[in-house]
Formats: sequence, C-alpha cells, structure tokens
Amino acid sequence: TLSVFADVPVGHKLESRLLTACMTDENLPWISPVVHKICLQTVQDPSLIYEYLPDPGLKSFIQASLELLFGKHSPAIVENRAGGVHTIGESGAFRLAAQFFRLWHRDASTVCIVSCQKESHGLVFQDMGFEVCEYCIWDPKKRRMDSNVILKVAEQMPSGCILVIGNPIDCRLTQSQWAKLMSIMKSKQIFPFFDIPCQGLSTGDPEEDAGVLRYFVSSGFEFFCSQFLSRNFGVYDEVVGILVVVARNNEQLLCVLSQLLSYAQALWLNPPSRGSRIITTILCNPTLQEEWNLSLKVAVENMMLIKEKVKEKLRLLGTPGSWNHITEQMGTHGYLGLNYQQVQYLIKKKHIYIPRNGYINFTCINASNIDYITQSISEAVLFTKDS
Amino acid sequence: TLSVFADVPVGHKLESRLLTACMTDENLPWISPVVHKICLQTVQDPSLIYEYLPDPGLKSFIQASLELLFGKHSPAIVENRAGGVHTIGESGAFRLAAQFFRLWHRDASTVCIVSCQKESHGLVFQDMGFEVCEYCIWDPKKRRMDSNVILKVAEQMPSGCILVIGNPIDCRLTQSQWAKLMSIMKSKQIFPFFDIPCQGLSTGDPEEDAGVLRYFVSSGFEFFCSQFLSRNFGVYDEVVGILVVVARNNEQLLCVLSQLLSYAQALWLNPPSRGSRIITTILCNPTLQEEWNLSLKVAVENMMLIKEKVKEKLRLLGTPGSWNHITEQMGTHGYLGLNYQQVQYLIKKKHIYIPRNGYINFTCINASNIDYITQSISEAVLFTKDS
Repeated sequence: TLSVFADVPVGHKLESRLLTACMTDENLPWISPVVHKICLQTVQDPSLIYEYLPDPGLKSFIQASLELLFGKHSPAIVENRAGGVHTIGESGAFRLAAQFFRLWHRDASTVCIVSCQKESHGLVFQDMGFEVCEYCIWDPKKRRMDSNVILKVAEQMPSGCILVIGNPIDCRLTQSQWAKLMSIMKSKQIFPFFDIPCQGLSTGDPEEDAGVLRYFVSSGFEFFCSQFLSRNFGVYDEVVGILVVVARNNEQLLCVLSQLLSYAQALWLNPPSRGSRIITTILCNPTLQEEWNLSLKVAVENMMLIKEKVKEKLRLLGTPGSWNHITEQMGTHGYLGLNYQQVQYLIKKKHIYIPRNGYINFTCINASNIDYITQSISEAVLFTKDS
Repeated sequence: TLSVFADVPVGHKLESRLLTACMTDENLPWISPVVHKICLQTVQDPSLIYEYLPDPGLKSFIQASLELLFGKHSPAIVENRAGGVHTIGESGAFRLAAQFFRLWHRDASTVCIVSCQKESHGLVFQDMGFEVCEYCIWDPKKRRMDSNVILKVAEQMPSGCILVIGNPIDCRLTQSQWAKLMSIMKSKQIFPFFDIPCQGLSTGDPEEDAGVLRYFVSSGFEFFCSQFLSRNFGVYDEVVGILVVVARNNEQLLCVLSQLLSYAQALWLNPPSRGSRIITTILCNPTLQEEWNLSLKVAVENMMLIKEKVKEKLRLLGTPGSWNHITEQMGTHGYLGLNYQQVQYLIKKKHIYIPRNGYINFTCINASNIDYITQSISEAVLFTKDS
C-alpha cells in the first residue's frame, strides 16, 4: 500500500537566521548578572519553579512589563486600558496579532513591515492571507538610516492597513517627523504595530528606547506591540514575549485580550514560566532593577567599543570609504554597508557567513576574530567592483 | 473617532482546566528527584542554559525521547523512519498535526477524539476546519472502561479519517482487541494519532505504558504521536512536547518533518530549551535514567495508595455501591463514577470543584483533605437521586 505521506514535498526552508543574542567578549550569550543571581536563588525553591502558570500567564509579570514599557504613570496604565498576553517569544506575539487582525480588523488586507523582519514575521502574516509589503529604512547608497522612508511608506499605503514599526529607536525620526507620521496614520486609519525587540539594549536606557510608545499613548492611539524580553534580560532559551494591547477603554481592552487569550490557549495553553518569574522578580524590586539597568549600560558601552574598534581598524587598514555608519547605528545589530559583491566575497572567499543585506550582529566580533574580520572586509572592498 | 476594537466581543472561555500535574502528599507538583538534582547542577553552567536552541530543537533530545517511546532497537528507529519536532507542549503538537492534516491529508475531514480531550485538543482541530466527533471509553452505567467503544467507533468512522487514541494504556484493550482495531483501521485507512501524556505514570513502567506504539510500528503503520514529557519528569512549567512521526521510509519522514518544522518556525521559532536539556541529560545517562525509573515506580505506588484509601474510606462510611472502579483505573486521573446530580452536589454544597464528568486528579487528594472529600462523596451519593 502507498504511504499516507507519498505526496508530501520538502518544506520551505527559511534563510539561516542571525544569531540574535547579544554576545560577550568570550563569545557567550550575554546574561545580565542580576539574572544569574536570581537563577541561583530560585533553583532552591522547586515549588516556585515547576508549577503550571495560570492561563493568562503571570499577572504580576504582565503588569511589571507594561510599566517597564510605558512607565508606571502612563495614562494607558492608570486608566486600565493597556494589557497583554504572555506569548512564546516574538513569533508568538506576531502570530496572535495576525490571527486577531484577520478576524477582527477586516478592513486591513495589507501589512507593511520593515525588510529585515520580513522573512520571519512577514511569513506569519502571509500565512494568514495578508498582502505583505516591505520597507527598508537603510539607505545603502548614503550608508545611513533614511528617516523619510517610513513617512513615504505611510503615505503610499492603503487606508486602514497595518504598519509594523520595527524597533522604533532605529527609525531615527525626529519629534516632528513622528508627529507627521502620526498625523498621516490618523487620517488614513493606519493601525500601528510596534516591535520592541530589546528594550534598553539600543541606548542603554530602557525608557529612552521605548519613548515613542509613550508619545503614541499620549496622542490617543490604539495599538499593538510585541514586547520581547529574552534579549534584554539574557534569558534567550525562555523566549519570553508579550503581545501588548492599548485600547480606548478598559471594556474594549478586556474583549480584545479575551480573544487573544483564546487563540493562545489553542496554540500553547501554558507559556513556560521560568523566564517570566525571573523578570518579574527583578522588575518588582527597585534594587534589582537598578542592577539590571546598570548591566544594560555596561553592555551597550561594550557594544559601542567593539564598533569603534572595527571602524578604527578599517581606517588603519586604509579601507576606501567612510565607516562612520558603523558607530552611528545603535544596538547589537547594524548594517556593515557592503554591497552584494562584497558580501559574497566575505562568504565565499573568507567563510564569514553574513546575510545578503550585510546586516550583522556586531557583538559576535571580539578580540579573537576582529583582525580577521576587518582585514577581510577591507579586502572585500578593495577587490570587488561596486555594482 | 470610533475605537478600532469597537466590534470585538468577549472571547470564548474554556471550562476551567484540570490541574493536570501529579501532586505530592504536601500538595506540591511532583518532581522526579533526579530532575531536581540535575537542575542544581546545570544552574552553575550558564552557557549551557541560556543559549538559543537550533531551529529543529535539540537533536539529542529528540533521539533520546524517541528511544524512550519505541525502545532503542525499534525497527522505526533502526531504519531512520521515526522522527520528531520539539513543540510547546501537547497543544503545540496537536496544533502542528492539525495544520499538517489540513494541508497534506486532504481525504481526512473528520477527527475522532476521546471525550475528555475534546475541549482542549478538539478545538484545535475544529479551528482548522475538521469535523470533530468524540467518543468516551468510560461506561458510567457499569462504572468501568469499555474497551469495545473504540472498536465500534473505528467501525462507524468514515474511511480515511483520523483517530486520536488518548493514552492507549487507559483503553484497556486486550492484544486481540488491538489486533482487531488495527485490522479495521488498515482496511478503512484510518490514520492513528496517539497521545502519550505521561509515559511511565500509568503503570510505573515507561515501556509498558507505550507498548501499544511498538505493536503499531511492528504492524507497519504510519502514524503521529503527541509525546508530552513535562508530567513524567515533573518539569511542568517548561511544557516540553514532541510531535512524533513514523513514516514508511526515511525520505518521506524528512519531507514530513520539514513541513512540520516550517509551521513550528512560524508559531514559536525557538522552543524553550531548559526542560529538554534536563530530560536529555537524564535519558542519555543509564544511572540517571534508572533513578528516574525508580521515581516513577514510587510515584505510581503512592497514587495507588491514595486510591486504596479513598475506596476504603467510602466503604467504611457505608457509601452505597461498589467503588472498585477507583482502584481499577490507572494513572493520576480517573472517573469518580458519580452522576450529574452527585457532581453538582459536590460543587454547590461542598465547594469541591470537579469537572461535570467526574474525571478527577486523584493525586490532589491527600491526608489533609481525604476525610472531607470522601465524606462529601458519601453524602452526594446518599442525598441525591440517581438520574
């Protein structure tokens, strides 16, 4: 008899994903020291670690994370119209949001998403039947973030669509550009979906990294936000995420949350709890939170130091062109500013495997590989033709 | 302006779920002592605990879990035609399976599922557009598992449908009844989907609990199986699951796994790793595995002791009827054998909140509540009319 699986072809394979963790000098994933301390404490208390979570996740965890995102005194929090559902990482948050939009935001048939997120998160929307457009805020010619792109995108998008605003601090919009964006979005009823992938690891200050959200709250927007907490606490394997909802009032918030919760129950029922318990312990204790804040500052300073070193070494090697864009970009990841031929040179001749767009994790560069990497970049620039 | 969420109603609420963990005398979730030992060891090694898992999950974890399920020398393992995808618990496994069936097993429009699973897992299939039928192997009149039910169900089901066989050890089929079921399933091309929710916690012997799977392998079946590992290791909050696939050959297995993996990537990308690392450490070390086996035996003996005590107390209280069905059922959960009125009596008069079908977690009964519970059951039986 024929196999039941006779017609099944090989599945679509995603491009190898970036190592997205922040790495240390020793090439290990960065962990906030306070997280390690709490881990050692909680392992002694098995009853705390192993029990199932209630369905909506840990209430105190959601509350503490919302306060981190918006500030304790945010109108959205004070008026009980901000809430969230604990998700399995960013993918889980995007998945719940896509399902919600399909069922309850029927005007939206298009989702606009920043291009370096398209592969992973864009697919989730595509699977749900959305048309996915991508935009790229990096201008490869000028080698800088082009803050006008997102404004142009908003102007060209159909009314009522969904705009995914990837890590807003990277967008480099001025206050007046944000105001302009909001005014376009309001008039065209474009729904904002923010992605906060590593609050605090861009500038070293969690409040500054999420400042734009506060601006949207105070301007009366309703929105969704994927809040990912594994990177900024260094609990990568727990993939701790929240889909955050800001609604007009508490009643509508509860309706939206109850819908999202019913999808979550069918998807994973209980979210893993260990990461969220660790994070809650830290965020609910001012001394521990201060330790965490400090660890973010140190991590970001180390990041900037690596970038400075890369830039300086490229300069000393006489690499043609300006490399200021390396230090102008914030956070763990950034564009190297290489073209297609140059990236191919790194991959094929130097076995440095980076994505086609040259968007790399700078924290993977350390004392033991910086000379090889900068020498290789220099060669790639010298020995390939510009396309 | 109107809220975007103005039309969103309150979502469907699931019936409060059973506490499904195995509980200790102290009313804490049971943890295999060897798990706690490994936790204390691994917390000292942060690099091991925190890094991201590769996309398909930990290869050694899948391999060790398959060997636990089928035995090292199973033809399916030796011939490389058994594999699995790491999932977020049972819900994740059912979710991936439902998506696969919808896309690649198009003949199947009906899923038949044991009734105590319908609420949670049945909804997943319903959401995917399947017609879901339920069957119940518990005969409330005779107060025993009726092993003929599943045979009748298989005879009545449409050809090419999917039969979810909930914890097979509970089905209480004899060898010849299993043979008859397999013959019906083969002739009607019914696809088997097993649920192994707590291997080792039914009889105390993991091999015996999954014996039926070995029988299906040796009879040349292709099938899926949800293998849940949080209960039998006591790492509940990690919700560690695998969707297991047995195919005709390695080539087809790889096609099926690649499809499942692409769904998993869109759903949760990285599964949490801590639970799977602990389980792998135990299963790959014969001494630790022996400790784990022993802890299962002890846990099951304690369970049986509780049931014996409940039965004996009901007898001493002069409760009418036979209560042998309590000790005849294996595992943590079982039917109390009460009718609708009796359950309502327990809920309303005694504040003992149990599901309508009287299917309870016996390990929640301990020294501090057994007298109240048995006294209440006795009253319920005496003071309500049989319907």
